[in-house]
Amino acid sequence: MDSSEFRKHAHQMVDWMADYMDNVDNYPVKSQVHPKKIYDQIEKGIPQKGESIDLIFKDFQKKIIPGITHWQNPNFFAYFNANASPPSILAEMLTATLGIQGMKWETSPASTELEERMMEWLGDAMGIPKTWTGVIQDTASTATLASILTAREQKTNYQINEKGFGESTKFRIYCSDQTHSSIEKGAKIAGFGKDNVIKIPTDDQLALRADLLLQQIKQDIKNGLEPLCIVVAIGTTGTMAMDPLKEIAQIAEEYKIWLHVDAAYAGSALILPEYQPLIKGIEKADSFVFNPHKWLFTNFDCSTYFVKDKNALVNTFAILPEYLKTKTDGLVNNHCDWGIPLGRRFRSLKLWFVMRYYGLEGLQNMIRYHIDLAKWLENEIHKAANFELVVPRSMNLVCFRFKPKGNNDLEKLNIINEQLLHQLNATGSLFLTHTKVDSVYTLRMVIGQTNVEKEHVEKAWELIQKTANEMTY
Amino acid sequence: MDSSEFRKHAHQMVDWMADYMDNVDNYPVKSQVHPKKIYDQIEKGIPQKGESIDLIFKDFQKKIIPGITHWQNPNFFAYFNANASPPSILAEMLTATLGIQGMKWETSPASTELEERMMEWLGDAMGIPKTWTGVIQDTASTATLASILTAREQKTNYQINEKGFGESTKFRIYCSDQTHSSIEKGAKIAGFGKDNVIKIPTDDQLALRADLLLQQIKQDIKNGLEPLCIVVAIGTTGTMAMDPLKEIAQIAEEYKIWLHVDAAYAGSALILPEYQPLIKGIEKADSFVFNPHKWLFTNFDCSTYFVKDKNALVNTFAILPEYLKTKTDGLVNNHCDWGIPLGRRFRSLKLWFVMRYYGLEGLQNMIRYHIDLAKWLENEIHKAANFELVVPRSMNLVCFRFKPKGNNDLEKLNIINEQLLHQLNATGSLFLTHTKVDSVYTLRMVIGQTNVEKEHVEKAWELIQKTANEMTY
Repeated sequence: MDSSEFRKHAHQMVDWMADYMDNVDNYPVKSQVHPKKIYDQIEKGIPQKGESIDLIFKDFQKKIIPGITHWQNPNFFAYFNANASPPSILAEMLTATLGIQGMKWETSPASTELEERMMEWLGDAMGIPKTWTGVIQDTASTATLASILTAREQKTNYQINEKGFGESTKFRIYCSDQTHSSIEKGAKIAGFGKDNVIKIPTDDQLALRADLLLQQIKQDIKNGLEPLCIVVAIGTTGTMAMDPLKEIAQIAEEYKIWLHVDAAYAGSALILPEYQPLIKGIEKADSFVFNPHKWLFTNFDCSTYFVKDKNALVNTFAILPEYLKTKTDGLVNNHCDWGIPLGRRFRSLKLWFVMRYYGLEGLQNMIRYHIDLAKWLENEIHKAANFELVVPRSMNLVCFRFKPKGNNDLEKLNIINEQLLHQLNATGSLFLTHTKVDSVYTLRMVIGQTNVEKEHVEKAWELIQKTANEMTY
Repeated sequence: MDSSEFRKHAHQMVDWMADYMDNVDNYPVKSQVHPKKIYDQIEKGIPQKGESIDLIFKDFQKKIIPGITHWQNPNFFAYFNANASPPSILAEMLTATLGIQGMKWETSPASTELEERMMEWLGDAMGIPKTWTGVIQDTASTATLASILTAREQKTNYQINEKGFGESTKFRIYCSDQTHSSIEKGAKIAGFGKDNVIKIPTDDQLALRADLLLQQIKQDIKNGLEPLCIVVAIGTTGTMAMDPLKEIAQIAEEYKIWLHVDAAYAGSALILPEYQPLIKGIEKADSFVFNPHKWLFTNFDCSTYFVKDKNALVNTFAILPEYLKTKTDGLVNNHCDWGIPLGRRFRSLKLWFVMRYYGLEGLQNMIRYHIDLAKWLENEIHKAANFELVVPRSMNLVCFRFKPKGNNDLEKLNIINEQLLHQLNATGSLFLTHTKVDSVYTLRMVIGQTNVEKEHVEKAWELIQKTANEMTY
């Protein structure tokens, strides 16, 4: 394809992309297709001869779009957002065209150095200590794994990297019973096993109980086990509960335990000064992760990982075979040594576009607006006779359930709410997901899509009430 | 930014992108900036107020482009290619705009199901057994790690995932002394330690010696160690050596050792029937990885990982917390359980665009053309009095050095060739990297950029000869 053909088609795509942005709220948020519907429509094998972009693009619209769940639809209230934004998409277009590798400094100095600066911008805006260093990872799962591995190697003086586990694992990793599955996944990968991930009970706000953590640590030490790492959640996935970092940091300091802070979603709100008290004590932690690809309007993937001691991280991952040696080794940062993959996309570019285009104030305004919308909904639920908040609103997440008056049967209410969720999602007008709080089936409504406005939340709330009240059960 | 502003700027970008494609060979291939040059030009902190895209885009051209090493320049002969292509870029534009997550089937059925089909297209075209299943990973490093972890869990009946390492590691991983650093990295992460990665010596083609592998395995068993996994390289990074899969597969079968095949770069050439004999024995292996983001014209990241037993993979990684439960669990594939990250981009779309646009024949022609260009260069080097091939050409990789007549001093020749490499790269007219073969400093020239033509190789060869012959040393 020569550049003139590319130019023609790319302009066509742009018009479709802009139209998509205009119309995205007219698509069913959650794809309504049945399993194998898309699969069956795709030809069984690679075509022998090439086909035209016109034909492929037509098929994209006809065959692929119905199988898309529209994460950029402002009525997407499910999971946590994975937000795109226009400046971020513009940057992704350039990134795809340049097609460079950011693995070593020399493979594109701009990628490494812009990333260094963007990490400073973000860290400063969020209150991360200025002496820390940041690097982009693909996801928080990977960053958390990197943190656990660094803890492992620092504790053993890099002996597991060298010789492997030398004896039965005595290491323990602590987190609350609400923290993300990625901690268990990371512990498994790193060879600790899920049985050594100790899930500390939570309080009535679903935040880790520091007193019980301390008790467990003391008990473990008594039993000859070695506390290795604590993972604090600033915003759990289920209900966005906030673990008490400051208290836990003191325990970590006293017992010299590695401390990782997982603020994957809620971290974006730390650009608001009023939320920075949530990470008081961060200077005693060892690492921190949050995902601009969630609530900071920067296309997936872009997870930012900050560490106190960059050498500990690099010493955990660096390997330098001959074919990767460059003249500048030792003088510059080679980000391939800062994580698992060798190859790396030019991901800092989109952060630069987003942070400059919106400015700090613009980003703050968007996040404050989302939180205000959640407050509005929280208040509506308070007033509604047949609904209740399951836990208090946290930032922009509202956890609630339908509870028709006089109905106190837990099992029955769970079934009703599960049915309500599926009926709502089947309308295509919105998309919610659920969690369980203790045993209570709970609807989660995250109000954080890039383009969400008051009207979307109002309409959603209307539909939720109407659907619930018309349900037969 | 509303859609009309996006539309305007995106059209501007497209024009720049098409112009870039036209002019990419006028940029210095390897960025010529000094460390901190780019960093120092970027403002020290996030701006308070938003800025215009016009300004940001101007800065992109002025401040970022000089720090770019142009991987899409046809004179890029370094490392292995990470190729973009016009159809792939078009797909990336759509992917960025949709901004969906492919973590679970329900989060966008089209992402999962198109991925399933694309893996079938690729697997069939390359001669992967039809009963195998494929999934996209970010990089081969991650896929190899996934393979090692699956081997670990299958061997221990998922006990390390559950309980962690129960005793001193007795497991051994085998690969040749030429295989990629990702194997050592994976072994470290998985808790085996680098000392348990046994690097088997290679023959004069730098391919793993199966006889020595067998000998080592027997010895290890005698010593009470447990052979866990063999990694076969189809195309090593240094010289694209081909390990004898068929022979090794027989050993793996006899001793019931997990067998992973790493064809990260060379795998693309398996779409040529004449190269498929290289993976004879694949049916006895357990997993296979190759990167369409290298030589199959599909933007990074897109590494495809094929496994014989998908359940072994899924059982190694699956965790199902409440907030990720969906109605279709058990009925469909949820790709978040097939690797490390939870979130996943819609990466199959670009494979679909690339494979349909070029068709199998188009892709085959491009790869055959690159190999023919490498043959031409090989022949030129044969004829040149002052150059020699260090190892025979393998596919599209030519490994050679400058060897002025009568000069046999290894150390001196190494210094001369290192100097030659840096002088060549400093011209900006081409970009080569090096490796060492035994102790011989060797220039690597990979002829596989999407847009490389005969004229680029001719000009490069001219420049190499001229620079070498004019060098003072």
